[in-house]
Amino acid sequence: MSLQVAVIGAGSWGTALASVFAYNGHQVTLWMRDAKLAEKVNTLHVNEKYLPEARLSPQIVATTDMKEAVQGKPVVLLAVPSHAMRQVTRELVPYLEPDVLLIHATKGFEMETLKRMSEVIGEEVPASIASGLVVLSGPSHAEEVILRSPTTVVVASASDEKMLRAQDLLMNNYFRVYTNPDMVGAEIAGALKNIIALGAGMSDGLGFGDNAKAALLTRGLAEITRLGIKLGAMPLTFAGLAGIGDLVVTCTSKHSRNWRAGYLLGQGKPLDQVLEQMGMVVEGVRTTNAAYALAGRENVSMPITDVLYRILFEGTSPRQGVEELMGRGRTRENEYLGPYSI
Amino acid sequence: MSLQVAVIGAGSWGTALASVFAYNGHQVTLWMRDAKLAEKVNTLHVNEKYLPEARLSPQIVATTDMKEAVQGKPVVLLAVPSHAMRQVTRELVPYLEPDVLLIHATKGFEMETLKRMSEVIGEEVPASIASGLVVLSGPSHAEEVILRSPTTVVVASASDEKMLRAQDLLMNNYFRVYTNPDMVGAEIAGALKNIIALGAGMSDGLGFGDNAKAALLTRGLAEITRLGIKLGAMPLTFAGLAGIGDLVVTCTSKHSRNWRAGYLLGQGKPLDQVLEQMGMVVEGVRTTNAAYALAGRENVSMPITDVLYRILFEGTSPRQGVEELMGRGRTRENEYLGPYSI
Repeated sequence: MSLQVAVIGAGSWGTALASVFAYNGHQVTLWMRDAKLAEKVNTLHVNEKYLPEARLSPQIVATTDMKEAVQGKPVVLLAVPSHAMRQVTRELVPYLEPDVLLIHATKGFEMETLKRMSEVIGEEVPASIASGLVVLSGPSHAEEVILRSPTTVVVASASDEKMLRAQDLLMNNYFRVYTNPDMVGAEIAGALKNIIALGAGMSDGLGFGDNAKAALLTRGLAEITRLGIKLGAMPLTFAGLAGIGDLVVTCTSKHSRNWRAGYLLGQGKPLDQVLEQMGMVVEGVRTTNAAYALAGRENVSMPITDVLYRILFEGTSPRQGVEELMGRGRTRENEYLGPYSI
Repeated sequence: MSLQVAVIGAGSWGTALASVFAYNGHQVTLWMRDAKLAEKVNTLHVNEKYLPEARLSPQIVATTDMKEAVQGKPVVLLAVPSHAMRQVTRELVPYLEPDVLLIHATKGFEMETLKRMSEVIGEEVPASIASGLVVLSGPSHAEEVILRSPTTVVVASASDEKMLRAQDLLMNNYFRVYTNPDMVGAEIAGALKNIIALGAGMSDGLGFGDNAKAALLTRGLAEITRLGIKLGAMPLTFAGLAGIGDLVVTCTSKHSRNWRAGYLLGQGKPLDQVLEQMGMVVEGVRTTNAAYALAGRENVSMPITDVLYRILFEGTSPRQGVEELMGRGRTRENEYLGPYSI
């Protein structure tokens, strides 16, 4: 059955997900702010700014009009940057159908409040819609999805019915969708993985080997899992596509901005120089700040986050940071996991 | 306190672990079969065959005499190939002290019986020693450990006291040791990771991207975890150093033989040609056989293992295998995990 789908946000990820819907036979309205970009999508069928190499389906129609995009649509997917989520949600709320399937595919926290995206959205939309909100996450470079390279993702929601509907709408022979009832875990894993990518880059920049990087990745996951549990997540979600899966693509890709920033820091460059050289936002730097604050608020031990915070903002050298991590007292692998620690 | 330690097996991993003990101030007797190699270790302080680049501590003394190596030693570490484990254990049993700390660092199954290494050892040594057996596993290229590059491992045992002793003896400023009571999980994770490395190589050989590789890794881990739970393991062990950690170093290293074999298979080469070209044992091929048999015996769903088995031994093409995996019915991320699936 062909449905009318609105995709809000025409970055690379929104555009790639619009293409998945179109491939599956749905009619997609792609909302963006940039009128020139929208015109190019509608005439040349290309997203010149974010995915210039790919030809888009003519079933994807761009608009800058939120009402036109959202009104009457049974399915709305949000793929806007985390800092824009609250504002954009406010703009679309007036047009949402009461029984809409609302999905978001944005990783990160609202920095000022340390809230997850589903919390931000939940504060802006009616409770009946918020309770069925679906999160989409997992290891998925948009550049590969648009080429129909095999990809798996997870959709998570408190509503079993809504997440099964999202799975049905998105799944096809190159885009495989799993379900998971743990929305909190999927969001936290996706938001915090950038910290570990930063650390992995730093390890490489210091000239350490594969053992050190694997250690950082595994123990980084362990501390993110600890924080997640404290915030209501289930530990196994972190071993799944939104956790490990996403972590692996982020930490092993040399194209990752977070890895690159960490690499430069590991080589001894100070943060301001690194940020200047990168010429753009490094999500992992902001995320380290957020995780450090959350760890303090929730009283959760996060030694890697703590060391990264001090390297970024308090002048600890990367080498000294590694020495501190390696020199900690002995611990059990699953310490602090409470009821889950066997 | 300086102790007398026997390390049985002078491959790269046994030699690297002997070096860790020596660095920590212990006297190490390194047992090997090859008399010429032993002489070189004792005169030139080098393991010419397996770690030729590294200079060994003079505190490491090589011998080919099992009695000399083991008798009177409070600590014995086994690091022999899995196929040699039963025979070597039989040789050393007569000389084991009754309160010895016995550690093994060998990954894999005994192929004929599908038994884990601790089961094999447990059948050969007195029950009082078997009950305190410690397994050492984790992401640890020997070539990096010998250079004192930061490394983390896990020791697992049913005996809390024994694993804490092993942790104390091995831990230092470059070799960080965590404990975990789940010995079964640590062994199964370490033994089965090679299957996933093979699959990851195949994905790369087929020309797929990072998304596909991350999918294979994550879903491969999920099915290994399912098998592990059926065999008595705890799920979170697979998210730890022996699981994810080891998987990441194995799947992302281009030097991995398993990755390489998978890559060639993905490019369309038949198995016999690949094995000939590799010129040595590819552990992942044997492990796929073992896991396929175990999955059948335990009635556990392992779709990736199943497809790999058919690609290796029944003529299914890698591309067809991927299509089958992507075309499966919809599932939940943590399906089949029973009491752990939240």
